[in-house]
This record gives sequence, C-alpha cells and structure tokens, in this order.
Amino acid sequence: MSTASYDPRTGGVVATVADTTPDELRRVVGAAAAAAPVLAATSPAERRRWLVAVADALESHRDELARLADRETALGLERLAGEVTRAAGQLRFYGEVAAEGSYLGVTVDEATATTPGLVRVHRPLGPVAVFGASNFPFAFSILGNDTGAALAAGCPVVAKAHPAHAGLSLRQAEIARQALADAGAPTGTFAVVSGHQVGVDLVQAPEITAVAFTGSQAGGLALWRIANERDVVIPVYAEMGTVNPVVVTAAGARDMDTVARGLVGSFTLGSGQFCTKPGLLLAPAGSGAAAAVARALHEAGPAPVMLTEAIAAGVTAGIDAMVAAGAEVVGEVPASEPGWAAPAAVLTASAEALVPGSRLLEETFGAVALVVEYDDAEQLAELVGRLQSSLAASVFTGAADDPQAADTIALLSGKVGRVAVDEWPTGVAFTWAQQHGGPWPATSAPAATSVGAHGLNRFVRPVAYQSAHDSWLPPEARAANPWRLPRRLNGVLS
Amino acid sequence: MSTASYDPRTGGVVATVADTTPDELRRVVGAAAAAAPVLAATSPAERRRWLVAVADALESHRDELARLADRETALGLERLAGEVTRAAGQLRFYGEVAAEGSYLGVTVDEATATTPGLVRVHRPLGPVAVFGASNFPFAFSILGNDTGAALAAGCPVVAKAHPAHAGLSLRQAEIARQALADAGAPTGTFAVVSGHQVGVDLVQAPEITAVAFTGSQAGGLALWRIANERDVVIPVYAEMGTVNPVVVTAAGARDMDTVARGLVGSFTLGSGQFCTKPGLLLAPAGSGAAAAVARALHEAGPAPVMLTEAIAAGVTAGIDAMVAAGAEVVGEVPASEPGWAAPAAVLTASAEALVPGSRLLEETFGAVALVVEYDDAEQLAELVGRLQSSLAASVFTGAADDPQAADTIALLSGKVGRVAVDEWPTGVAFTWAQQHGGPWPATSAPAATSVGAHGLNRFVRPVAYQSAHDSWLPPEARAANPWRLPRRLNGVLS
Repeated sequence: MSTASYDPRTGGVVATVADTTPDELRRVVGAAAAAAPVLAATSPAERRRWLVAVADALESHRDELARLADRETALGLERLAGEVTRAAGQLRFYGEVAAEGSYLGVTVDEATATTPGLVRVHRPLGPVAVFGASNFPFAFSILGNDTGAALAAGCPVVAKAHPAHAGLSLRQAEIARQALADAGAPTGTFAVVSGHQVGVDLVQAPEITAVAFTGSQAGGLALWRIANERDVVIPVYAEMGTVNPVVVTAAGARDMDTVARGLVGSFTLGSGQFCTKPGLLLAPAGSGAAAAVARALHEAGPAPVMLTEAIAAGVTAGIDAMVAAGAEVVGEVPASEPGWAAPAAVLTASAEALVPGSRLLEETFGAVALVVEYDDAEQLAELVGRLQSSLAASVFTGAADDPQAADTIALLSGKVGRVAVDEWPTGVAFTWAQQHGGPWPATSAPAATSVGAHGLNRFVRPVAYQSAHDSWLPPEARAANPWRLPRRLNGVLS
Repeated sequence: MSTASYDPRTGGVVATVADTTPDELRRVVGAAAAAAPVLAATSPAERRRWLVAVADALESHRDELARLADRETALGLERLAGEVTRAAGQLRFYGEVAAEGSYLGVTVDEATATTPGLVRVHRPLGPVAVFGASNFPFAFSILGNDTGAALAAGCPVVAKAHPAHAGLSLRQAEIARQALADAGAPTGTFAVVSGHQVGVDLVQAPEITAVAFTGSQAGGLALWRIANERDVVIPVYAEMGTVNPVVVTAAGARDMDTVARGLVGSFTLGSGQFCTKPGLLLAPAGSGAAAAVARALHEAGPAPVMLTEAIAAGVTAGIDAMVAAGAEVVGEVPASEPGWAAPAAVLTASAEALVPGSRLLEETFGAVALVVEYDDAEQLAELVGRLQSSLAASVFTGAADDPQAADTIALLSGKVGRVAVDEWPTGVAFTWAQQHGGPWPATSAPAATSVGAHGLNRFVRPVAYQSAHDSWLPPEARAANPWRLPRRLNGVLS
C-alpha cells in the first residue's frame, strides 16, 4: 500500500510514499512511549533548544521546501517560502512559551493547621498524534502549531503525513529528525507515519495520549469518535473548518466597495482553503453588498487551483447545493486554469432562506462566499443565533463611535473564539493572546486553542503532590524552583 | 411521578418529592438561559457577595440541615454538621478565587508592526447542569463544589436533586434561592430539579452548556455519552469512583500495624462511600499486611449503614465477585445493624491474580479493601501499570531518606491526579493547589478538577478580541482594568 501526491496544476504524480506497516507503527509508537519520560524530565529551556534547532533547519532549507511544496499544493513559491518562515517562527515561539514556564501552572499551598501541603504542577501527557491540515503544508502540518506546542510541553509527537503533500511531509520529517538528533533530543521524540488506515491505528494505539487535528468537520469528528471508543478515552483537539461570519454595521456599509474588495481578498486567499475563510457576509438591507462583492470579484478575477481533484469538484458541488438551498449566484469567475481549477463565486440569499438545517448555514470549502442582507439588529441577532459556531468572526464598523459596534461584537463573541474588528479573520497571529478554537462544532474542545501560547495547555495534565518531601518531587515542583518558573504561593502569584 | 427518599436505618420513607414536569424543566432552563448574560456581566466581586450570602444562610441552618440529612443518609449528626460548615467554606473560597480574577486569564498583546492587538479573556459558558454525589449531601451536592465553582465563574446552575437525599436537596435549594434573591442575584441563577428522566432531559436541553457530575463510573459515563450525542456537544466533567491504590514501601512496612489501623480508618470512613476511598493496599512481600489490616478491622469493628438498599446489597455482591476473581476474605465484620447495613471486609489476593480485566482491579463501593503483596520494585511497577487510573493514591514511607519513595511517587503520579505521602487519600482540601480529578476513567476530563481553585476553569471558554476599540470590550478586557484582574501584558505577567 502506498500514497501518491499529485501536482494540482497538471494532475501528474509528484511523490509515492509507502504506507507505514503495522509493525513499523508499533515500533514508532513504542519509541515515542519510551521517549516520553525522558522528555518529561527535560527542562523547558532544553526543549526550547531543540525547537530552535528544528526552526533553523527548516529555514536553511526554505527554498528547497517551498519548491517541493509548490509542486504538491500549487500555492505559489512566495506564499510557501513565507509559510516556512512562519512555521520556524512558531516553533521558536512555543519554545519561548515553554521556557517562560507559566504553562506548568505551578501552585504551592503550604501546610496549615487544617490543610496539608500541596504542590500542583502540569505534567506532559505522553505521545501525541498530530494530523496536519491540507491547506497549510508547513504552518499547520508535520512541524506546525500542534507539533511545536506538543514538543514544547514535553510530549513526543507521531505526526501523520497529509496525503496531498506526503512527499513534503517526509522531507520535513527528515530535516526535523536530523536537527533533533543533532540537538541531543532522544530517539522517539518525533516521527512521521503515512497511510489512511495507519491514521486510524495511530489514534487507537494505547501509547497515544492525545490527538491534535486541523481540517474538515467530517475528518475531525471521525477521529473524535474513534478516540471516544478507546478503552482509555483520550482528548481530541480537532480544529475544524467553519463559516466565519462577517457583519457589516450600517456605518460600516457606507464604504461598501472597500469592504467588498477586502472580502474578496480574504475569501479567495490560498484558493479559499483557509479554515478562517469568511464564508458569510451579513450586511444592512439596501447596502448593495452583493453587487459590490460581485464587482470586486470580477475585478480581482481569481483563478483558484485547489489542492486535490476532490476538493476542486467539491467547490462546484458546493455552489450547486447552495443554489438548491435558495441562494443565487451573483458573481462567478469560472474555472479556467488547467489542472484542478475551481470557480470563485459570490452568492446571495434572503435572510428567510437561512432556516435551521439549511445548507446555507454550512461551510463551502473554496473561494465561495454568501452575502445576506439583514433588516435590523433584531434580525441580525436572529440570523447569528441560527449559525453554527465558528472559529472566528469579523465586524466592519464606521468609526469609534459606531453605535452598533459593541452589541455586534458581544453578539458574535457568543458564537466564535475570536472577533476581529475592521480586519478580516483569515490572519491568525501566533502570540500570547491568540485564540484559534471556537464553540462546538468549530472545535471539539472549545476551551483549547491550536495557535498561540495557550496551545501548550492541551498536552498537559495537573498532578498534585500532597505532603511529599521536597527531594521526592520533580524539578518543577521543588521549593528551590530550579527552572525559575512563575508560581502561585498560598494563593498569591509571583 | 415522584421520588421517595428513605431512612437507611429503618427503610422508612422520609420525603416524597414530585418529579419536575417537562414544562417546569423548560421554564427552569429558560430562566437559567435568560440569567446567563446577566451573570456574565456581573463582576466576580459581586458574585462573591452572592456566594457568601448562600454560605451564611447554610450555616445559619446548620443544625436543621444536619438533622434532615442524617435521616436520609445515616451519616451521623457530627459529620453532617461539619460537612455543612465545609460546604459553606467552599462557597466562600470559590467566591475568593473569582474575585482574585486569575481564572479569567486576561492576556493582552499590544499591536506590533506585524501582529494585531489581541485581548484574550475567559467568558462564562452559560447554564451548567450539576449532578451531586450520593455520599456527600452538602459538600458535593446541590450547593457543593460544582455549584460553587460554576456560580463563581458566572454560570447559572440547574442542579439535579440526588434521589437518596431529595428532601434535603429541596430544603437546601429553598435556603439558597432565598439567600440569592436577598443578595440581588437574578432569577434563574440557581434552581433544583428532580426525577431520573428529568436528569437526562436536562443534559439534552439546548440551553445547558456544561455538565458536572460526581458519582459512579456507570452514571458518569452515561451522562457523557448523552452529551456526546447532542447536536451541540457539551463538556461533561464527571468525577468518578476509583480504586485509589496505596503503596507501602519496605521502610514504611516496618510499622505495619500503624499503617493497617490508618487504612481501616480511611476505607471505612463514611461507610466506605468516599470516591477517594483507598481500595487497594500494595505492601512488600512478607510484611504481614493482610493479617495486620484484618486485626485492625476487627478492633475497629465498624458496622456500616449504607445510603441505599441497592448500595448495601452491592457491597455483599462486590465481596462475592472479588472472591470469585481469586481473592480471599481475611477479615470481615458482618452486617449487624438494622436497616441497610453492609459488611466491612478486607480481602487479600496474590499479585498474579491481578490480571488485566480482573474484577480485582475495579472499585468495590463500601467499606471493602484488598491487600496484595509485591515482591520488588519491578513487580510493583507492573501491578500499578495494570490498574485503572484513579483520583488519588498514597505512599507510606519510612523516613525522609526512604530510597523507594521518589520512584514510587513518580510511578503513581502517572496514574492519578493526586499523590499523598504518609497520609490517606480520603481528605480533599479545597485550596489553590488541589487536584481532584485523574486520568480516564477516574475523570471524563482529566485536566479538570472538581475541588480547588482550578475548578472554575471548567465553566469558561476563551474569546480573543482583535483590534477592537477599548470601549467596545467587556469590562474584564478593558485597558483600565476596572475589576483589577491579574493580566499578562505582551507576554509578561503582572
């Protein structure tokens, strides 16, 4: 059994990667399990060193990797080289977050007359299975946010190669494993496996303690179900594609042409294959939003090439399904490129068409957006209430005194993990305050984030030590605080 | 339909409580949903005031409540009056934790040349369903840890009355609702419902956003499955009964009689109905542990009365099942009291009998413990590896230089949420560093705790606001920090 990756521009085979055999998988997860206690005993600063080594190695192969990625994804050399830089930056950032040490949550209660001494620290879970995204072959893939956060938190990673960029996955893995070995990380710290059934077997492997996934709702929920059927159920952090609504206020609609051009730029970015793609624009009645977006689409004239043949076919099927559900195509740039091209389209529908269960309330993957006009704040609230929850939303306002802004932000904050104001949702900075995860079904664990400093929290579990002699504790729990971690002592942060 | 509660000492009916009707349940969850945004907008200090009011009201009814509870639980007036005091203390503690404000996780990234301004805060989830424990009619019930943490975090609570103390549940609810109303909390902040099917309907109600449960593995997993089948899946924080192993080191076994008396005191506490009851003692070969525990049991001569007829019958059935699985009864105090009395027993088995899947690896609810001898550290590690994960474990050592201590603590820390040293696991202090939740299946969400400051984290979800004008943000996210919350600014805690 093997997996072939293809050139989306021609449909020709780029790489053929043999599926990991059951024996190989057993060895890989066994090595990860053997490495887990070694990683758990390393200091966060030591693991930062490993992450920096991988980041440096990635960057030193940037051009080679971008070329390889472009053949398998057709996302363009410039974007892909930039994504290598981003992925390297992410790995360094998670190393910094680990070294800062707040993620360990060290909490110390000294003994009192009525309560025992307790030290609570976060311990790494153990081997983590990572399923990367189709649409970001670096930043959300083999060496993306999930791998960076898991290694930073002290967990070995077994990553599954995405079939669409299986060749690139193996090359990245090769580079990372060499860098990790040179930096002194133990064998078993990181491995890549390949094959569809291998992914299922990986989630079922008793040694695996958590799963991180970025991709479609169908894929994420399938892994979540498999994990829930294990003898020992493990957490699945699935971050899934969503509609990501954008609301334009009455004041914001005064410059509808600028909003429309911005929307087109955002929903066609990366061929509309972002999980934060804005799929729905809610604009005030009479704002002419649909026509403005249609004009902007024709001006931009995007000719998206999709990652796979199935995804390209899915775009056309998605548009057809939206039309069948009552939407009307108001602007379309038909597929024109050779290879796996798809149309880019903007549709419109009445607010009444967005009934519960309607296809119009679901994501259409690709460069497709729906424009719906709302009559007033009440109808807007009703429409937002009907939407599935999303990863992100945007509000476009008129000015700092926009009377609709605060209420609209509050309304959307109940439905998403991030509300961007006067900015498009597609950009996701990796910083301390980022939240990339929303209410179900945007994310299977809505309190988790797959981007940003809090991403490490997914891969740890608290343990409290009660009345133990200091010398019997792991370093992070010791009174002398050898790793210089932030601590809460008797309720007070220090 | 109605639920009757009984006097365990006589089997006579104490209270008959009508089941909540479907219409009543709809009204109750509707009121909770209506209260949710009001609670979310109150300051943590305001909610602390409410919690203090409920705590004061509980204490002012201590004797009445203890008498009522004793009739329904037979746990004894002294223990029950003490538990009222504890429950009141817990409510005040969760109020303090809320007011301190770290649980809101305020994280601010100021805009840079390449990244937008982001403010990340934890927002309350909304109405929480609370299923109290059978064995703690105050501290883990209607007004226990879950309710305290949820209200402190800004979530309305709909609690389900435990059938065994349904009368007490209603009386506690009456007291709490009056105190909340007097303190100015909105209608819908807290309600109690009753009835078996009502519990299922409650978990399925679309307005409910999270479930907290303390009780048996069967009960907790049933609720978890129901929640996983909802259209919008919600988190279930089920904290379930476990074996809670105790290891005696070679040095610790030198004074086996003291250990044995301590074990008997701990496993018979509250008729052995604690979720942290030590159900398994692992002692060095030749330590005479089983005989010592049998002697201590006969000296103590406990005559446990269980909460319900089914639980009492379950104890005898559990002992029989353990014998069928290869254990031998070495000490037993037969049921002698009238009413729902059960035997107290200590059994022993060989290490070889603890094969995977054996009944001996499961909890037997009640005053029953199993003693198993281990040959050496290697066999101990093997035995601990075979156990299901637990809420807590204990290690009994000889002295600060016990060469086995550190390794044994590390071994157990992989299997539990709390390791107590030279102390029994049954006491669970409510402090900042407490962890009452262990790996699956001890807890359905192993990173959560149902006791201690971190309990509030279960009922919030992060939202990031990107590039929003300060005046459009909720108070906790504003630059002026009106609630004086601890914050992380550009990566630095302050």
